[in-house]
Amino acid sequence: MKTQKISEAVIRRLPRYYRHLTALSEEGIERISSGELANLMNLNASQIRQDFNSFDSFGQQGYGYQVKNLINELGGILALNSTYKMIIVGAGNIGRALTFYDGFRNNGFEISALFDNDPSLVGCMYRDKPVYHIDQLDEYIKHNDITIGIFAAHKNFAQDLAERMVKAGIRAIWNFAPVDIQADIPIENVHLVDSLFVLSYKMKNQNNSDV
Amino acid sequence: MKTQKISEAVIRRLPRYYRHLTALSEEGIERISSGELANLMNLNASQIRQDFNSFDSFGQQGYGYQVKNLINELGGILALNSTYKMIIVGAGNIGRALTFYDGFRNNGFEISALFDNDPSLVGCMYRDKPVYHIDQLDEYIKHNDITIGIFAAHKNFAQDLAERMVKAGIRAIWNFAPVDIQADIPIENVHLVDSLFVLSYKMKNQNNSDV
Repeated sequence: MKTQKISEAVIRRLPRYYRHLTALSEEGIERISSGELANLMNLNASQIRQDFNSFDSFGQQGYGYQVKNLINELGGILALNSTYKMIIVGAGNIGRALTFYDGFRNNGFEISALFDNDPSLVGCMYRDKPVYHIDQLDEYIKHNDITIGIFAAHKNFAQDLAERMVKAGIRAIWNFAPVDIQADIPIENVHLVDSLFVLSYKMKNQNNSDV
Repeated sequence: MKTQKISEAVIRRLPRYYRHLTALSEEGIERISSGELANLMNLNASQIRQDFNSFDSFGQQGYGYQVKNLINELGGILALNSTYKMIIVGAGNIGRALTFYDGFRNNGFEISALFDNDPSLVGCMYRDKPVYHIDQLDEYIKHNDITIGIFAAHKNFAQDLAERMVKAGIRAIWNFAPVDIQADIPIENVHLVDSLFVLSYKMKNQNNSDV
């Protein structure tokens, strides 16, 4: 890989490329030009070529890109050739929904267990995943090779529990609480309310802008 | 409001400002400087001043900004002074979790009903919200002043159902399926798997970059 720093904007487009290319491959399409891919994704072709030029193995040969080759390269860049064990802090509605969601497993992201302090939830099984007491969190992470911690409990506990997870060996946090966690490991936020507010802004302004 | 176009990046920061300022106000803080707010949010102060300068009512008077004033202005810009009625297409795990999630209601976003084609779900109540058959979707939207459609069903149905919702009068779509919907109304995507892929990329690259 080239040594230049990949910008946050490019990083955020990579999963979209991966998703669209996978869908194309499932439809049996073997080659695609940057122009065709641009149409499909509402981007412009030069943007796509520039993004792919960030990585030196993405060269076009003859007409367009080989779809399967791109998928493999993107999969490598996104580190999808590994498997990841995850735990969920918070066995409420969001934690439960994530446990039953199938979109991760196919890509090597596997939920191992959930943790909560609510006695009515501790001991439950969601599908085949146990809900343990939050006191067992640190030991469980240490002894089960867990790399991703999902936070889906009340925001007031987010910072403390994130620090406990980091100390126990977690390498990344996927945060669903409406709060910004401070930590020295990668954090991705799914701020549901923020997303809804953006929608509300755009509804109000759709008539006088092109957003 | 000034006539200049507000960039997507600024729009996406507005809910974060709103969230942080609301938390400050709840703590009893009345004034804050751009520097203090910058520290709190991991932004830089000139960025914040520049963002706020996009809107002409955000002037500083003396030391810093008045927190309550900013909250009111941001609330107006984000159109949070209205209430929004929403329906959910898909009464599976994600739809169910959203129905039970309290973060929206406090801000004027109210779920009215869910729709599904699964006979084992139609007729259920989630909290006090009914699950209707998907055939009733169009009439329900028309007669109940629904403005936001949440899509939480299988991605293969996303485009068709989005078109039906638009035709019935929906003004915005909040999409949880891993697919890009084409429509002439605002769409916000919560692409869970994309977010997880970004996390996986960052875990792999955290040692040789500062992302």
